[in-house]
Amino acid sequence: MGKKIRLGILGGGGDSLIGVLHRVASAMHDRYELVGGSFNPLLDESIKFANQLGISTDQVYTNLDILIEEELKLPKEKRMEVVSILTPNFLHFSMAKKLLENGFNVICEKPMTTTYDEAKILKETLKMANTVFAVTYTYTGYPMIRQMREMVANGDIGKVQKIDAQYYQGWINPIIHDKEKRSSTWRLDPEKSGISCCVGDIGTHAFDMIEYVSGHRVESILADLNYLYEDNRMDIDGTILIRCENQVKGVIRASQIATGEENNFTVQIYGQKAGLKWAQENPNHLYLLEDGQPMKVLKPGHSYNSDISLDGTKLPPGHPEGIFDSMGNIYKGVARAIRKEPYDPGEFPTIIDGARGMGFIEKAVESHQKGNVWVELDKD
Amino acid sequence: MGKKIRLGILGGGGDSLIGVLHRVASAMHDRYELVGGSFNPLLDESIKFANQLGISTDQVYTNLDILIEEELKLPKEKRMEVVSILTPNFLHFSMAKKLLENGFNVICEKPMTTTYDEAKILKETLKMANTVFAVTYTYTGYPMIRQMREMVANGDIGKVQKIDAQYYQGWINPIIHDKEKRSSTWRLDPEKSGISCCVGDIGTHAFDMIEYVSGHRVESILADLNYLYEDNRMDIDGTILIRCENQVKGVIRASQIATGEENNFTVQIYGQKAGLKWAQENPNHLYLLEDGQPMKVLKPGHSYNSDISLDGTKLPPGHPEGIFDSMGNIYKGVARAIRKEPYDPGEFPTIIDGARGMGFIEKAVESHQKGNVWVELDKD
Amino acid sequence: MGKKIRLGILGGGGDSLIGVLHRVASAMHDRYELVGGSFNPLLDESIKFANQLGISTDQVYTNLDILIEEELKLPKEKRMEVVSILTPNFLHFSMAKKLLENGFNVICEKPMTTTYDEAKILKETLKMANTVFAVTYTYTGYPMIRQMREMVANGDIGKVQKIDAQYYQGWINPIIHDKEKRSSTWRLDPEKSGISCCVGDIGTHAFDMIEYVSGHRVESILADLNYLYEDNRMDIDGTILIRCENQVKGVIRASQIATGEENNFTVQIYGQKAGLKWAQENPNHLYLLEDGQPMKVLKPGHSYNSDISLDGTKLPPGHPEGIFDSMGNIYKGVARAIRKEPYDPGEFPTIIDGARGMGFIEKAVESHQKGNVWVELDKD
Amino acid sequence: MGKKIRLGILGGGGDSLIGVLHRVASAMHDRYELVGGSFNPLLDESIKFANQLGISTDQVYTNLDILIEEELKLPKEKRMEVVSILTPNFLHFSMAKKLLENGFNVICEKPMTTTYDEAKILKETLKMANTVFAVTYTYTGYPMIRQMREMVANGDIGKVQKIDAQYYQGWINPIIHDKEKRSSTWRLDPEKSGISCCVGDIGTHAFDMIEYVSGHRVESILADLNYLYEDNRMDIDGTILIRCENQVKGVIRASQIATGEENNFTVQIYGQKAGLKWAQENPNHLYLLEDGQPMKVLKPGHSYNSDISLDGTKLPPGHPEGIFDSMGNIYKGVARAIRKEPYDPGEFPTIIDGARGMGFIEKAVESHQKGNVWVELDKD
Repeated sequence: MGKKIRLGILGGGGDSLIGVLHRVASAMHDRYELVGGSFNPLLDESIKFANQLGISTDQVYTNLDILIEEELKLPKEKRMEVVSILTPNFLHFSMAKKLLENGFNVICEKPMTTTYDEAKILKETLKMANTVFAVTYTYTGYPMIRQMREMVANGDIGKVQKIDAQYYQGWINPIIHDKEKRSSTWRLDPEKSGISCCVGDIGTHAFDMIEYVSGHRVESILADLNYLYEDNRMDIDGTILIRCENQVKGVIRASQIATGEENNFTVQIYGQKAGLKWAQENPNHLYLLEDGQPMKVLKPGHSYNSDISLDGTKLPPGHPEGIFDSMGNIYKGVARAIRKEPYDPGEFPTIIDGARGMGFIEKAVESHQKGNVWVELDKD
Repeated sequence: MGKKIRLGILGGGGDSLIGVLHRVASAMHDRYELVGGSFNPLLDESIKFANQLGISTDQVYTNLDILIEEELKLPKEKRMEVVSILTPNFLHFSMAKKLLENGFNVICEKPMTTTYDEAKILKETLKMANTVFAVTYTYTGYPMIRQMREMVANGDIGKVQKIDAQYYQGWINPIIHDKEKRSSTWRLDPEKSGISCCVGDIGTHAFDMIEYVSGHRVESILADLNYLYEDNRMDIDGTILIRCENQVKGVIRASQIATGEENNFTVQIYGQKAGLKWAQENPNHLYLLEDGQPMKVLKPGHSYNSDISLDGTKLPPGHPEGIFDSMGNIYKGVARAIRKEPYDPGEFPTIIDGARGMGFIEKAVESHQKGNVWVELDKD
Repeated sequence: MGKKIRLGILGGGGDSLIGVLHRVASAMHDRYELVGGSFNPLLDESIKFANQLGISTDQVYTNLDILIEEELKLPKEKRMEVVSILTPNFLHFSMAKKLLENGFNVICEKPMTTTYDEAKILKETLKMANTVFAVTYTYTGYPMIRQMREMVANGDIGKVQKIDAQYYQGWINPIIHDKEKRSSTWRLDPEKSGISCCVGDIGTHAFDMIEYVSGHRVESILADLNYLYEDNRMDIDGTILIRCENQVKGVIRASQIATGEENNFTVQIYGQKAGLKWAQENPNHLYLLEDGQPMKVLKPGHSYNSDISLDGTKLPPGHPEGIFDSMGNIYKGVARAIRKEPYDPGEFPTIIDGARGMGFIEKAVESHQKGNVWVELDKD
Repeated sequence: MGKKIRLGILGGGGDSLIGVLHRVASAMHDRYELVGGSFNPLLDESIKFANQLGISTDQVYTNLDILIEEELKLPKEKRMEVVSILTPNFLHFSMAKKLLENGFNVICEKPMTTTYDEAKILKETLKMANTVFAVTYTYTGYPMIRQMREMVANGDIGKVQKIDAQYYQGWINPIIHDKEKRSSTWRLDPEKSGISCCVGDIGTHAFDMIEYVSGHRVESILADLNYLYEDNRMDIDGTILIRCENQVKGVIRASQIATGEENNFTVQIYGQKAGLKWAQENPNHLYLLEDGQPMKVLKPGHSYNSDISLDGTKLPPGHPEGIFDSMGNIYKGVARAIRKEPYDPGEFPTIIDGARGMGFIEKAVESHQKGNVWVELDKD
């Protein structure tokens, strides 16, 4: 495997959950070494946090500009090789752009940017930079999602004929019905969160997942979004009809007012020969439905799985693996790309996926605002 | 309970599954006695079948016209009180109309008619006849569906804010991809099956269920149907956006090309306080999701259930009950209505439900054909 | 199918659940006609009940002795052909014996008798009578249980190597901890309920099921029973180690103090090639576990099932069927036996099963009382 | 949190799964820093592995003796504080003993020793050493297991009255039926694996879990083990009747010939007020069964959970967490103990648990060999 990759992190300090997730994921396959970053707007806090983590404070910086300046002075063998961006959404674009322009590999939390235009600019920047760029659509790292993708690609379900994805949560329910709360939550403030709440936050996961597992690009969409209150400016629920290449139809359903739901994210792909189903709350089961045959339940770690699925499984069959492992798999893929080792394009989501997600959000809002009409997505 | 109700049946002879289902359901609560009917276009076959069933052949007739003529000659205490219509769909309307015009109570399989116009005529006929008319949307007889309806009505989930129903089957998959088969299957022939295949057959179940459990009327819909082949004239899949009274939004998804699915019929209703979920393939579990509380799993027969749910449960908790019982519950409700005993409006679907279902089908096709636009449903 | 079989019933009047279950089951396949019986110790009540059921009162009698006397006077074509015994357990033996001695076919609720000695006498009586005798171990009528039996018999799981059955209920929990209640419940009174409560009531179901699906006879057992209170004379929980022919080992676990459990009855059979699992609370799923293969989930009604399983399924795949259907299947098998039509020995439990169950109960208590030692069961 | 704890590891080099598990777990909560150890019998290999891991090779040693010698020369602030023992079972005892005698904290894989006598010696050694000693019964780190333990302790289910644990695997099936394989597998060789295969490997997990969640000590056992072949010297399946303090009865079932099972580990505890159930293959669901109430499904991360459960959850509700997280929780608890921070005794298994497990194995074999008789366990 060779030397560990030197990793810097922007954001993710203190009790940040996303910080924990990325640090553990990076540790999971012995490929990364956290060397510094800028965890907090206050340098003191960043240094305190580095001490807590038990890492040297030599590469802890006040902000990204100083980070870039100082890192570029370091010899290559000390310099950060990849930087993870875990800051609030509105900072993603400018940070990613600067990092790319200065030759860093980047791992960026989703949403990649706040507008589709920014996403397109970033794509151009990356072309020049020619480094590795990953967007952490975490769910694509699950072993059984990878297996699902492989089976569709291998023709195990025949020609795809129907796609259905659901991402139902209920977390915004206690907020949305309280006038005070719904006007003060940053997630419902377009200045802070961009054009969309529900589609932007979880609809994009469903969108990315559909493209990932089905191997089909969504070509046009018709959206009906839901705001519940007139003074609420952000969608908190929506159903989006989709049409993919090859005349495949489908539907994406996303909600944050599905009261009591946690992360009820499901994907169903039906083909001419068989169907495949997966649910995030039980991520180790992949269901294969064949005409007139007993349903089959595939689980991680068995030799009947594809190589990319098995690569994402650390333990023998029967031990559940969770979201940490999924993120860990994505970090592993990025490590391979950085080290120029062979890897499968399915190992981590790229800037293309990030940009398509941004396009999806904007087009969904556009379809809704135009009165629930069909809107075409850009070809990437 | 008093004397059993004298039941006649049209159709359902030989090995007909729907015949078995209605006979068993009628026997289930000791309220009906099958006395005759017209089971088959050939009188000989009907008589042979009556013998097989071990019933007298005195009230077995060549066809409905003769049945009505002869029955009206019989003294009231011998005459059939209710007639179940289990014949092919295109016969439902004329048979139901004649029966109503001659004062019979009617139990009619779904779809009630082949067009919405017929359904509206039938509503008028019933007004004059003033007898009992039930449409067998079987699923509404499940104890936990009744419980779900009661809980929504009682405000247990608060104001309804999101509705989602899915009815996914895969049975047409082996047919649709074979040019010969898809052109010769009666279900895909508009002359024989009316305007719609998938929406007409199962979409209506989802539609009726949503109105049944949510207590909300669907006001307008936007449909995107799916035909897969240009020479196929009938929808075999579709997604329908719905808007209900009180600004509630939702979605109905129906498919017959969800390969490998059997009767994957699910209903999810989310309210301001909680959500409720049910799936037909495990009909004895009703899931209650409350913000920040452990999910609760309600089962039939417990004293925490409502009266109408308990009334639909014959055995102590823990014994699964199936589709036979569900239909049996509907027959029980009809018996009460015929005998003018008190009953809950939720005990059986009426002509209103039947008519709304027909309207739904036609409007869904209209929405699709007009280019996926919103179409309003009639107020019943 | 020919004329319906004339059925008499002893007990099961009023609201009796077991009465409902047997009547519906007998109606389910159009093979039986209920003609009379003795539903209640009081003739008046029996006649009132017959009126409620809508049947003639000509063959309703004060008690079994009069029933036999009067029925024997009737011409063969009017006489009851089979009598179902649904009375309290302590009456089963004497009633069954008289019925057999007078040439009737018998369907007897479980437990067949109150002692093993009675069971052995009944076996002798049946040999002389040469009629049909069924014990209603209802669960053996489930389509997927029949499928499980066939698969084991066909060698689909290879040589059986491990057997595990659980029947956990919690219903006695609210009784057992109340001194007053536990001393006054008939089920805990050995005079009324025989030697055992938990083993007798549900342990026998597990025992019968194991022999039914595995095709193996239990040869010896070691029991540890549980009474919880010193003043409680009846077992309300127990674990029983078993050894079957061919050196197969296993375990039966039964409890009525598994608080909150309803009828959590599960069967697991593991063989050299594969394992099979089934749970009564989801009776339409049969799980096939093969080394290194995806788990398969078999469901009723598919052509991959065996003939005897398909024979027990009335509806197309995907419609859940419940305990009523299971009992209905047993009645169907008995009808075939009475009419001397071909049938599979697995279609209904016979007196042999009934007698083995009684032996099992007595030996279980004996093993426990002797200090948890191995006790051999009789060869049937 | 302060400085990270310096961790050394014995064994776990190369592709060792247990090595991955411990390294990730130690990284998961930012409390440990891997500083060295002896990963492999060959120093070259250990150094190569350290390079792969990206750690310094200064504290990588040929064997444990040299490790101890050299580490003791180091200043306290550089010296390893805790050593994890991941070597083959037969080495655990001697290594643990030496480490304790030299003042190290120890994390030891299970089984802690190969005999009960060794375990008792180790207990004495620890008393002198007065350091922290954890045995990694990994499953006790699951958030919902911790919640289960708390609920039992808090009296949420009332007085415990029935205990049932199952650990069914099928992995030895392909080996046991092959004479060549079963004679050459180290796991079936008593010289290498100690007195027991199935009870030692997984029965102990069930045993430890029962004591952990129920808060009851097992007092005596009666075992029936299973060898299948006469030339097989090690149990590969067994059922063990248990009697706990307070007259609580129960059963432990363990099997490695449950063909097709992966890690089907379940625990059911029933009390006077309610029952609790958990299954390892879906570790985020804890089922609460109360008399006459809907079943409740508790999940991690909700505020209704206890502090110790919440402490073991890193992410918001709805994200599955797996075995890595479970082990991570155990490492976190050990870190607190080492740093003398407050911690709950339920946070990691101690030498007492390790010793009781060894006693359990030996007594189980003894009970079986004496002819399935009751054998008492030592009071710890």
